[in-house]
Amino acid sequence: MARTGRRPGPTQTREAILAAARSQFAERGYGGATIRGIAAEAGVNAALVHHFFGSKDKVFVAAMNLPFDPAVLVETVVDGPRSGIGERILRLFLSLWREPDTRAPFFALVRSVSSSPEVAAQLRGFMESAVLARVAAALGVPRLRVLGAASQMVGVVMMRHVIGAEPMASADEDEMVALVAPVIQHYFDV
Amino acid sequence: MARTGRRPGPTQTREAILAAARSQFAERGYGGATIRGIAAEAGVNAALVHHFFGSKDKVFVAAMNLPFDPAVLVETVVDGPRSGIGERILRLFLSLWREPDTRAPFFALVRSVSSSPEVAAQLRGFMESAVLARVAAALGVPRLRVLGAASQMVGVVMMRHVIGAEPMASADEDEMVALVAPVIQHYFDV
Repeated sequence: MARTGRRPGPTQTREAILAAARSQFAERGYGGATIRGIAAEAGVNAALVHHFFGSKDKVFVAAMNLPFDPAVLVETVVDGPRSGIGERILRLFLSLWREPDTRAPFFALVRSVSSSPEVAAQLRGFMESAVLARVAAALGVPRLRVLGAASQMVGVVMMRHVIGAEPMASADEDEMVALVAPVIQHYFDV
Repeated sequence: MARTGRRPGPTQTREAILAAARSQFAERGYGGATIRGIAAEAGVNAALVHHFFGSKDKVFVAAMNLPFDPAVLVETVVDGPRSGIGERILRLFLSLWREPDTRAPFFALVRSVSSSPEVAAQLRGFMESAVLARVAAALGVPRLRVLGAASQMVGVVMMRHVIGAEPMASADEDEMVALVAPVIQHYFDV
């Protein structure tokens, strides 16, 4: 779409959709919100929301400014040899922290999850259906074990990057892999 | 000490010490603050701070309203058979979450650590000297591995209680022990 003087440009339309999405996710939770409802609140056609974002989970990623697309996470987990899952996941997460562009929204997410039960509930609904269910189904691993692996990753983020406890904060990535990848792997070996 | 009309009662004195402690920890960090400096700021004798709290780490626990005394955590880790460390730590943490009295300050701590780099720095200094160094020395385990175990515990708290992802949020304690205790144990088996 070209920008014209007569109607909102793609940037404004995209922002209007994201604002509507935040409102719908806040009101209905991740599970209850729909592309159709988001489009209606933004005053656009549902096809336009699909055009801009593709799917509800990608609308959520953009609206919540998540530091990564869980579809990439799911691919990382599922693709490649099963014995390398732990290391692949860990290296993906560690790489997200190298760049301030992905680090800043990670901090913002930790803050908003821990200060707002509503945000925590939205993220929970999203994680359960967009990440957990897909990984569990693709690998045939019980959801509780996938959450065990996820909890270890979240804990590494908190300890290494939010609290910044030494010597973990300045351990290099190979040391982190040697320490934590076997644990992540353990949760997927069933 | 009896309450009198002429001088502050123990409650006010205790609160004055805690206010001075928060100020000193904020200004100097955990490592830099001293009982003597806290007493001076509160306008009391250092012996009175020892009388009320016993040690700097206990002043910190009270001033920051920490949900548990790390001395208890250290004892839990160190006492008893080494092969049961994972289960003992996990059951201690899970028990802290059963009661709203300890759960509320845990949430407050997660919020303040993730929103304030200063609080994160204070907590980091405290953890490194009051918990990490003691556990590492008592068990002869490298600090990085102790932090691995700590990161798994923090992650369980985030996933089960802050995000509340199912089925982990409503798993019973025995299920959690079966899932996570072997991982905690792994970090201590060197």
